[in-house]
Amino acid sequence: MNSFGRIFRCTTFGESHGEAIGCVIDGCPAGLELHISDIENELVRDIPDKLLGTPRKELNEVKILSGIFNNKTLGTPICILIPNGNHKSNDYKLMENCYRPGHAEYTYHERYGIYHPYGGGRASGRECIARLAAGAVAKKILSQKNIYFESKIDELAGERCVSHISEKLAQETCLRISEETGDSTGGIISLIIKGVPAGVGSPVFGKLNALIMYALSTIGGVKGVENGLGFDASRLTGSSYNDEFGIIDDEIQPLTNNAGGVLGGISTGQNLTFRIAVKPTPSIPIPQKSVNWQTKEEFSLELNGRFDKNFTPRVAPVAEAMASLVLIDEMIAAGMINPTRIGEVN
Amino acid sequence: MNSFGRIFRCTTFGESHGEAIGCVIDGCPAGLELHISDIENELVRDIPDKLLGTPRKELNEVKILSGIFNNKTLGTPICILIPNGNHKSNDYKLMENCYRPGHAEYTYHERYGIYHPYGGGRASGRECIARLAAGAVAKKILSQKNIYFESKIDELAGERCVSHISEKLAQETCLRISEETGDSTGGIISLIIKGVPAGVGSPVFGKLNALIMYALSTIGGVKGVENGLGFDASRLTGSSYNDEFGIIDDEIQPLTNNAGGVLGGISTGQNLTFRIAVKPTPSIPIPQKSVNWQTKEEFSLELNGRFDKNFTPRVAPVAEAMASLVLIDEMIAAGMINPTRIGEVN
Amino acid sequence: MNSFGRIFRCTTFGESHGEAIGCVIDGCPAGLELHISDIENELVRDIPDKLLGTPRKELNEVKILSGIFNNKTLGTPICILIPNGNHKSNDYKLMENCYRPGHAEYTYHERYGIYHPYGGGRASGRECIARLAAGAVAKKILSQKNIYFESKIDELAGERCVSHISEKLAQETCLRISEETGDSTGGIISLIIKGVPAGVGSPVFGKLNALIMYALSTIGGVKGVENGLGFDASRLTGSSYNDEFGIIDDEIQPLTNNAGGVLGGISTGQNLTFRIAVKPTPSIPIPQKSVNWQTKEEFSLELNGRFDKNFTPRVAPVAEAMASLVLIDEMIAAGMINPTRIGEVN
Amino acid sequence: MNSFGRIFRCTTFGESHGEAIGCVIDGCPAGLELHISDIENELVRDIPDKLLGTPRKELNEVKILSGIFNNKTLGTPICILIPNGNHKSNDYKLMENCYRPGHAEYTYHERYGIYHPYGGGRASGRECIARLAAGAVAKKILSQKNIYFESKIDELAGERCVSHISEKLAQETCLRISEETGDSTGGIISLIIKGVPAGVGSPVFGKLNALIMYALSTIGGVKGVENGLGFDASRLTGSSYNDEFGIIDDEIQPLTNNAGGVLGGISTGQNLTFRIAVKPTPSIPIPQKSVNWQTKEEFSLELNGRFDKNFTPRVAPVAEAMASLVLIDEMIAAGMINPTRIGEVN
Repeated sequence: MNSFGRIFRCTTFGESHGEAIGCVIDGCPAGLELHISDIENELVRDIPDKLLGTPRKELNEVKILSGIFNNKTLGTPICILIPNGNHKSNDYKLMENCYRPGHAEYTYHERYGIYHPYGGGRASGRECIARLAAGAVAKKILSQKNIYFESKIDELAGERCVSHISEKLAQETCLRISEETGDSTGGIISLIIKGVPAGVGSPVFGKLNALIMYALSTIGGVKGVENGLGFDASRLTGSSYNDEFGIIDDEIQPLTNNAGGVLGGISTGQNLTFRIAVKPTPSIPIPQKSVNWQTKEEFSLELNGRFDKNFTPRVAPVAEAMASLVLIDEMIAAGMINPTRIGEVN
Repeated sequence: MNSFGRIFRCTTFGESHGEAIGCVIDGCPAGLELHISDIENELVRDIPDKLLGTPRKELNEVKILSGIFNNKTLGTPICILIPNGNHKSNDYKLMENCYRPGHAEYTYHERYGIYHPYGGGRASGRECIARLAAGAVAKKILSQKNIYFESKIDELAGERCVSHISEKLAQETCLRISEETGDSTGGIISLIIKGVPAGVGSPVFGKLNALIMYALSTIGGVKGVENGLGFDASRLTGSSYNDEFGIIDDEIQPLTNNAGGVLGGISTGQNLTFRIAVKPTPSIPIPQKSVNWQTKEEFSLELNGRFDKNFTPRVAPVAEAMASLVLIDEMIAAGMINPTRIGEVN
Repeated sequence: MNSFGRIFRCTTFGESHGEAIGCVIDGCPAGLELHISDIENELVRDIPDKLLGTPRKELNEVKILSGIFNNKTLGTPICILIPNGNHKSNDYKLMENCYRPGHAEYTYHERYGIYHPYGGGRASGRECIARLAAGAVAKKILSQKNIYFESKIDELAGERCVSHISEKLAQETCLRISEETGDSTGGIISLIIKGVPAGVGSPVFGKLNALIMYALSTIGGVKGVENGLGFDASRLTGSSYNDEFGIIDDEIQPLTNNAGGVLGGISTGQNLTFRIAVKPTPSIPIPQKSVNWQTKEEFSLELNGRFDKNFTPRVAPVAEAMASLVLIDEMIAAGMINPTRIGEVN
Repeated sequence: MNSFGRIFRCTTFGESHGEAIGCVIDGCPAGLELHISDIENELVRDIPDKLLGTPRKELNEVKILSGIFNNKTLGTPICILIPNGNHKSNDYKLMENCYRPGHAEYTYHERYGIYHPYGGGRASGRECIARLAAGAVAKKILSQKNIYFESKIDELAGERCVSHISEKLAQETCLRISEETGDSTGGIISLIIKGVPAGVGSPVFGKLNALIMYALSTIGGVKGVENGLGFDASRLTGSSYNDEFGIIDDEIQPLTNNAGGVLGGISTGQNLTFRIAVKPTPSIPIPQKSVNWQTKEEFSLELNGRFDKNFTPRVAPVAEAMASLVLIDEMIAAGMINPTRIGEVN
């Protein structure tokens, strides 16, 4: 269950404070020009926001270990490796034998009887850089089909971000909450995918919207996902919600896009639209009740460290990456991208 | 993409006005006592609500064609068949060559170049009876582990349904809208799953909440899905959202359940909670713009027939069924249900 | 594990003496003209050989329950059903609580704690008619790409069948053994697949030869499989085995085909060649040692009934069907068959 | 198609002369004690045989990048990396634009339009060290269930190896052929798996023998695979082939093992037996016809370098590894190995 996709299939590995994070992409067509910089351009988007992120700046070294020759993909598995620079850090030592509220030590321990004690291990947000790396490859292929991803912040701490000004104000609210109480905040991301032709996706369990909603739901901290008008659709009548059909530019098309780009799970050729709810950062420098699982003693846990005040902005590129993995898979499945070769190869 | 699940794997087939709807369940453990009535008890929940549904009453004949002997499962694939009684009906004849707003003829045609012209074919809500049938088997096994599903209506036409009285009022709103204007309405379902032990689900792409959110998103008409506090979580601070840990009944447990029963994608042992947004019924007896795809003429489409005024209530049992398919798979994957045998066999 | 294929995916179900045998084909492209007679033409090949088979003639009624409209495939799952006419037969009653040598009651019982007591249940050769049905669809699509399957008998009872005369003599040997001692015999099938273009199959675990060898190995009674020169290849030197390259008809091609049509798991454009070893029919009217598993008493089992003297000829069409399922999947995976649409639709 | 297994799932990557070869194992239960030396002990078996192999000695450095903490598996993906020391070698430069007979450049080029020009790339036998690494983990778990693998050489250059003396003589035959003519030879491996309990494997497409035959067929150079008596079974009568049942040690068991440890695709509790035909080493220092694909000129190719005289011995540990990957998967699938935890974890 660390693989995603059926044809363009990405398997990720790595713990936050292990040796490395990485992914293996199986099923990438041959002949794609691929440079380390293509990966780096996506990874750089994970560098925390100056205002709401941690002050640390994680520059990630990237290696492509297989699947390319002279910067062209071979059709064989592409292993991308991002070594963890400071993986022997002792920052988290004090937290051994303790479950942090909002974190996954408790449930990992329940399932596996063991968990990586440093920095969340596999449950860390750092896992997402493998998704960004795989997404970089998918997005490069999709961009050749004029498919593009736009993510933006819709809400922070409950405040709508409809303009640069309102977004700035919402950021300041988050900052103020953090400075005054140490508390963290969450937010909502909107994701628009442009350029997807009609006819992508399939009936029943392969609905394009469902696959993307699943993809987005797998991102740590995501608690809700909407397509099109989402929850608001449930409050409209059929006549106001239904997208009627007409002829535009000599083609039959829906005249509005309340459905968010899909009908019956298959794309309409319009923009695909989604919204994603992100919970507040779980790590906060505020005392919280916890239990030492070895001694079974309850105690008040005070986390020290540098935490994101709000990690919503960091979810945005990961949402794009996950959606790109769904799309490339479904476009190959629909016969719109050749599964074997891209462009001219000798 | 008409299969769901990895181990307990259900493949569905059938068009609304074809010969039959059905499913094949592969991976059901041997030794389960299974009767036709187990399936019928779930299918009967699809009979439309008297108030909001269509007046027609679809009694579904059920056949189990394989996988059992003397009402015990054999461990081999179970094929369940529900013949379509009136499948040669001509009710839909007038709609040939036309895309109904809110329906999938347009996108099926774009993808496949062909579509079943009667009653939505594979995109019909009737497809869900195959899910109910498969869910009936999954739920029977899960009930032996004391896992139960509770779905209820949270909203209809934008009105909260917090009590029987408020639900009744909301139903009357839907009915009034339908009678006065012919228009349809939507709603929100809440789903609670009780009895799931801690330790079910897995990291990254196998998060239990993500798998269930995917499962729910595949149901026709679902436009949004939440886990736990969902979108509201994005408006809370970390200290108010995080579920602290304490000792209850000598066991370490989270003291609240804002997360909706999962941490890091693995169950906490608490109730799993979800909410599902359902769009208004697409079929309405109100003129809507459409286009005849053969002549490319725009025209005003007036649908005749008997439609659900609001199909939200019909989504509830399907949501339970889909969640049950995820849970049985994940409990087998976690080693909590034997993949081969259930109970004593001869 | 009752599904075969990744894209063109066939799920089979049904016990020998249950209600029906059948399959669901998911992933068949839309627009294929498909008639019941296409299926019947393959199923008729399972009617036992007059000389070596049982005298019974199993005429199989075929139903297509879904996935087609006006004899065109819709791109949705195709359920094909073959009812078992005489499924309530009591012929096998005496064998309850007994493991037949060469049959699977023993191992099914060990795994599942239960088994279908009549006619082998899921382990019966009758299961193969679902493979023939699915293969009929695959072969129809492949024939449009000029890909054809030829199976023939290479050996019967250890005698080579290099001509019609020698095959006739070998058949008579089998018949004589059966008449004189009641004993059964086995044989070897050769399978040639013509018209597969170069470039089908993939490295490592997706080798075309390995996938076909797997497909053939899943047929009941198959004990060995070879590709190209097979075991004989192990006795040659590199210089005599290697297929050298030259130019034929202005194209670079291998000059010989010792490899059986693949190099590194990918097709060369030459004929694909395989050989399949089939064990002797396990059911024989000769006393054999067995045990009643309820009483744990050893006894001498004498089977009565009409058995194939040699079921090798019945394996041949199933071998073609299984190979066709691999090929269609791999040709779609290689971008050589459109996964969505075939030919002109609407 | 670079992944193997459904539950204990191994994905391999890496070209012969790329940066590294490796694998990611997803689905390994938590709590297994795992050391680098466990992997090294299998990899050392790939060091070529002094007599028949190349003189070079490839010492492989091994890194475990994820999935373990303090030498215990975490239940998360285990990435094992084996860097290619001399990967910038120019040994193969002369062979650019040329297809070597018996190698895969031709077919890779046909499929992907591109291929790694050095040392076979992904088609190199070096790919197998990733299989050995994954197999090392599987075998360690299986050994705790008392399941062991024994591979031995059955034939070399057509000479049976029934004793140490006859094996030695056969080796000398291979050596003599190589020294006198430069030619290479092939052979046959037998594989015995001991300790597998009855009840592993499943009907139809999940037959244990078929899965293992597939696994063995994926190894480069394998041209034939047998289970039990294999091709010889086709030459016996039913009464001489069938394994009769009796009572041994108070348990019902087959009295002989002609079937090679399976009935109906499910294990009998006896030894699983297989035979594998390996073609002669394709690289030979003897002139062979080839074509330069850029100039389309035919020429006589003379390979220089140090080649295995016979690589049959190197297939043996890989055969064990592949069979171990099938077995661990099927034992988890049968509920005989816990998919989540092994042994005591804290």
